[in-house]
Amino acid sequence: MKTIDGNHISRAIIKDLKKQVAELQGPPPAITFIRVGENPASIAYVNRKQKVATEIGMLSNVVSLPATVSRDELFKKIDELNNDKKVHGILIQAPLPPHRVEREIFNRVSPLKDVDGFSAANLGKLCQEDESGFVACTPAGIIELLKGANVKIEGSHVVVLGRSLIVGKPAALLMMKRCIEGNATVTVCHSKTNNLPSILKQADIIIAAIGQAEFVKANMIKQGVVIIDVGINRVNDPTKKLGYRLVGDVDFKDVYELTSKITPVPGGVGPMTVAMLMRNTLKAYHQQQK
Amino acid sequence: MKTIDGNHISRAIIKDLKKQVAELQGPPPAITFIRVGENPASIAYVNRKQKVATEIGMLSNVVSLPATVSRDELFKKIDELNNDKKVHGILIQAPLPPHRVEREIFNRVSPLKDVDGFSAANLGKLCQEDESGFVACTPAGIIELLKGANVKIEGSHVVVLGRSLIVGKPAALLMMKRCIEGNATVTVCHSKTNNLPSILKQADIIIAAIGQAEFVKANMIKQGVVIIDVGINRVNDPTKKLGYRLVGDVDFKDVYELTSKITPVPGGVGPMTVAMLMRNTLKAYHQQQK
Repeated sequence: MKTIDGNHISRAIIKDLKKQVAELQGPPPAITFIRVGENPASIAYVNRKQKVATEIGMLSNVVSLPATVSRDELFKKIDELNNDKKVHGILIQAPLPPHRVEREIFNRVSPLKDVDGFSAANLGKLCQEDESGFVACTPAGIIELLKGANVKIEGSHVVVLGRSLIVGKPAALLMMKRCIEGNATVTVCHSKTNNLPSILKQADIIIAAIGQAEFVKANMIKQGVVIIDVGINRVNDPTKKLGYRLVGDVDFKDVYELTSKITPVPGGVGPMTVAMLMRNTLKAYHQQQK
Repeated sequence: MKTIDGNHISRAIIKDLKKQVAELQGPPPAITFIRVGENPASIAYVNRKQKVATEIGMLSNVVSLPATVSRDELFKKIDELNNDKKVHGILIQAPLPPHRVEREIFNRVSPLKDVDGFSAANLGKLCQEDESGFVACTPAGIIELLKGANVKIEGSHVVVLGRSLIVGKPAALLMMKRCIEGNATVTVCHSKTNNLPSILKQADIIIAAIGQAEFVKANMIKQGVVIIDVGINRVNDPTKKLGYRLVGDVDFKDVYELTSKITPVPGGVGPMTVAMLMRNTLKAYHQQQK
């Protein structure tokens, strides 16, 4: 099938995690989510993650803090969880209120519990190709999507659109790793890139993560390309009950014919991110048992 | 001038560092080198770095350990230096004896004293674009070379040849940073890259760091490209006293005509690396005074 089914691939991973958790002795792996403020997207993301954690048999807990929480109070809470032996994974749900320095907050989480992989320590381990670290969930999920769809990464030219800490950079580092699931030639493009279409046209695999609705069009890509669409953008649509619909960074209908494989939005990368979070939490649990 | 003179550009930086150090109160910045085994290249590198440290007015010290030193003994020595308030920078000189896991050793150095920038903590900070970290000296030196030669990085297409922890990856991360000295579109190529010449031909700037003598030829590049040659390779040459000469990863004579700027080997990147190490040591000193 041409459309890569993230729901299907993630279900298989979740099923396997559930089996692994069922076989554990003693208290199950536990993840705590910290939510700051009442951003509706943050609430929805945390709810979805909690639901999957429960399904797998993991414990989960949500700490809600007001948007007005001070830096010291937030850090105190994170430190408490860092020191709590009953908590194996900690996730600070983005987006955070705008005045927060996300980097500083991510770095406060113990590297051993940083199941989101956004801390400097884990990003550094990714650079070093140190398997003991936690890889950010979205890029890790992209690898699994490509594996699940039998797409060969090694030797391919991957063009990553976007250089964020959360997707673009870790995805690039993963794709160039010295391993069979890496070994790609990687180009990172962004808002300052000139001649973007001429670069995109060379890609065997495109990872679109720039947060611009339906940005990638058919005239920018080559026949047979594999597209992973990380974007989730709202566009107004009065025909929908909510008044909007969700679209990716890729114009799905426009490019579909030319691609050899493509992820839909929703139902592509999104569910994989949640599955990878659970995999990281189980990994954290095992590391902390030692 | 077409040839980028690393000696000249590094001299200006060293002169400036010397002035800054002369104005400090109290004991000057101090760097300790750890050398393991008797690799002649390691000895030569450390001697050169010590000479420049002395010239700038910094204290330096070399700890020589036998190639047979145990992991625990080496770690104990590193820990001692991590805890020594009189030492601001620590450098473990590569190449290490082959059975050593370099990553593990680099990560043992306190991130605050890791003036080589090879620890996971500092690589992660580079990913996060956190200016408080230490950037690996060779990539940092490449930026200074390009600035010194008035080469515009922003908006250019940089092709990095090589994906090492020490040059390729940090250079790629620096070049894509959100800043006027970054903002480049970056492609990372390596041994698994297909159609390398067709990618190199697109480059506005090539950073060659693959350790293969005179690999880049005129027929792989476009007119007007800027080339930074990080390679230092020995090739047999009976006409030389030592029986060899040093060449880069680029066939200098072959490409020269086509380039708009190019670094020589030696006298290009090499001296910049040493200057950047000294700059990092002064930065470490200032951070530790706080």
